[in-house]
Amino acid sequence: MDKINIALLGLGNVGGGVFEILKTNIEEIQERSGCDIQISKILVRNPNKKRCVDVPEELITTNPDDIFNDESIKIVVEVMGGIDPAKEYMIKAMKKKKHVVTANKLVIATTGAELIRTAKEEGVRFCYEASVAGGIPIINGINESLTANKIEEIIGIINGTTNYILTKMYLDNMDFGTALKEAQDKGYAEADPTSDVEGFDAVYKLSILTYLAFGKLVNPDLVYREGISKIDAMDIEYAKEFGYVIKLLAIVKDDNGVLELRVHPTMIPERHPLANVNDSFNAILIKGNAVGELMMYGRGAGDLPTGSAVVADVISIVRNVNDPIFKLSESKSGNLKRIRKMEETTSEYYIRITVKDEPGVLGRISSILGAHNVSLLSVIQKGKRQEYVTLVFVTHKTLEGNINKSIEEINSLSFVDKVENIIRVEKME
Amino acid sequence: MDKINIALLGLGNVGGGVFEILKTNIEEIQERSGCDIQISKILVRNPNKKRCVDVPEELITTNPDDIFNDESIKIVVEVMGGIDPAKEYMIKAMKKKKHVVTANKLVIATTGAELIRTAKEEGVRFCYEASVAGGIPIINGINESLTANKIEEIIGIINGTTNYILTKMYLDNMDFGTALKEAQDKGYAEADPTSDVEGFDAVYKLSILTYLAFGKLVNPDLVYREGISKIDAMDIEYAKEFGYVIKLLAIVKDDNGVLELRVHPTMIPERHPLANVNDSFNAILIKGNAVGELMMYGRGAGDLPTGSAVVADVISIVRNVNDPIFKLSESKSGNLKRIRKMEETTSEYYIRITVKDEPGVLGRISSILGAHNVSLLSVIQKGKRQEYVTLVFVTHKTLEGNINKSIEEINSLSFVDKVENIIRVEKME
Repeated sequence: MDKINIALLGLGNVGGGVFEILKTNIEEIQERSGCDIQISKILVRNPNKKRCVDVPEELITTNPDDIFNDESIKIVVEVMGGIDPAKEYMIKAMKKKKHVVTANKLVIATTGAELIRTAKEEGVRFCYEASVAGGIPIINGINESLTANKIEEIIGIINGTTNYILTKMYLDNMDFGTALKEAQDKGYAEADPTSDVEGFDAVYKLSILTYLAFGKLVNPDLVYREGISKIDAMDIEYAKEFGYVIKLLAIVKDDNGVLELRVHPTMIPERHPLANVNDSFNAILIKGNAVGELMMYGRGAGDLPTGSAVVADVISIVRNVNDPIFKLSESKSGNLKRIRKMEETTSEYYIRITVKDEPGVLGRISSILGAHNVSLLSVIQKGKRQEYVTLVFVTHKTLEGNINKSIEEINSLSFVDKVENIIRVEKME
Repeated sequence: MDKINIALLGLGNVGGGVFEILKTNIEEIQERSGCDIQISKILVRNPNKKRCVDVPEELITTNPDDIFNDESIKIVVEVMGGIDPAKEYMIKAMKKKKHVVTANKLVIATTGAELIRTAKEEGVRFCYEASVAGGIPIINGINESLTANKIEEIIGIINGTTNYILTKMYLDNMDFGTALKEAQDKGYAEADPTSDVEGFDAVYKLSILTYLAFGKLVNPDLVYREGISKIDAMDIEYAKEFGYVIKLLAIVKDDNGVLELRVHPTMIPERHPLANVNDSFNAILIKGNAVGELMMYGRGAGDLPTGSAVVADVISIVRNVNDPIFKLSESKSGNLKRIRKMEETTSEYYIRITVKDEPGVLGRISSILGAHNVSLLSVIQKGKRQEYVTLVFVTHKTLEGNINKSIEEINSLSFVDKVENIIRVEKME
């Protein structure tokens, strides 16, 4: 198997995630890329800093030229953040004919065009899926999957911090200050939360989405922006009264050639899919003239979700360099042993039974379930005294085989008219 | 600009959509593909059949060899459906060194491996994004964007017909038969609805997703399958009582090498994102060990959504053939005229004002709003008699400029203490 050397610029949160994913999922990544992808150098500012990942010392360097001048390194992954020196380093890497992957929204939103141009001139690939909405493949989505569409509108919840705060305010009746404090304690908000809370972060991401969807570079300073710090608990209460949820939306739409961009708190109907995007999750709704409404929902930040997007970009480059045509075949790694039989699956079950209304019926059925290790979460008996009544059971998690055996026995009881329905219940946790 | 000739096999619902999209979005598609993509032949069974699209007569042929033997045709788009002769035609096209795009879930689920192998042998690309969940880019998502992940689980609502029926049963309290009838009247369900209603269609799609995510070909006949025809209105009522929604889920999970596949009606918590996927929409939730939870939501069927996926595959092939490296630059087509000023945007507005509790206050503020063409949807005045009270207004759709002028005047009123907050309301229609 060919070996491909890559280098990381930076080893913070996202860099650690990339390192971790390449280690943990090595088998899958080898199979999907056809190559052995190795991190051969990592640039850090302070080699003595404690890291959350365990990196061999010989990979670490503080001299960027060690990377630029190493011809064995084919791909440079920029995960240091900020504009300086990240931008300069990316351009240097491209001039050394290295492909570049970045997670840096600030650089893309402000000087992305220059980087894309440089990549073109140097004949290298430049990928930045991780720069918007972390693990959600929105950039690939627009660039690759929605190419047949005239995109009409994008509406996104693209800042996890503010969404976490608004969720706490809505579901737990917290005020803004308390929710912000909790977000900071959980690591969702920074000590200085201005960039998130006042909508700057969302504006950068909206600028990138606008570029991708409408081919138009809009300076982030020109985008209308309103944060969430002025949202009062009282506004949340009124929103509830009207059947709305308040979300910080980033919106861009093309109205017959007039482009409208804005980031601001918005009341939306509580049954809308975007209204149910909670906690630090992100979601992006796109309207295209062919596809209609398309929404993607997922983790917009965090080491592993963002790392997932970065590593996917790396794999995409590796595939393209090696063999642009073939991308999938049946797995050879042989991890899969067999297909599970239904009776070995577990679930909770809803069971509806029509029985004759006789004394002891409920006890008898419950005993049968109990004898097969099926324990009950709820039982409902409804209906006035008449010949037949409906019994509804909801079980705790149990083996389907136990349910099958119970039902067989229950069916044979003289007072059971019919087991009307059995429906699996998934808590979706 | 290079011209690329493609041919359609079939001109039904999806074929018509492909034709329409290539015509309507020609400018965007030229810009994104770098080529002029032309349909040069269309194979139909009956040339005299009335079509919903207006196709030039000279494109129509009833002889497949007209397409296979035409060396100018580089890409064949199979949108005829069924296994025979679709599969044979695709293999013939590949042997003639033509790339193939298909929307055919039945062929992919049952003999996809053979087609993929043939494409490899012939050195052509074979794309089938449209075969699962119409316009939702789930195949590209798994194949391209989630390559860094060990996929743990996929849970999907991947049949629009059953989801429409279950939505009607849940939201409008219809019984199964009435909802099915309505689905048929609206064209969501076929005259013989068995394939949808009994879960066969979902099983085919689940087989394809399983292949992509786990590299394992599972014969659709081996997948556990339960349809929705036995769901009674009474079950829906009980589900509501327990806080659940019933959805037809297609589930595949990898539990340490044991693969579990099943399609069956399932009760899920009403606040879960999948529970709010209504009508004929589809959604697919993927859990990966790096990305966490990722959900895609959109139109799973229909001429234009499915056509959107087919044409994206065509564009992807065209780009790859021409220039695999460069995929995006600033738009040159110049459709965009300008960026809209905020005062020209329209929205509904929530406005919260603290005022001195004097007679005539509400009338005065309402008059100012009216004078600026801001009409009101709701007004709430709360609080007992005290020096200050809260007024909340929700407006109908209006220009932001009118709101700004109104607020300026309202702010100058002696009895207004403060305009506390203005929040835009979007109905998301």
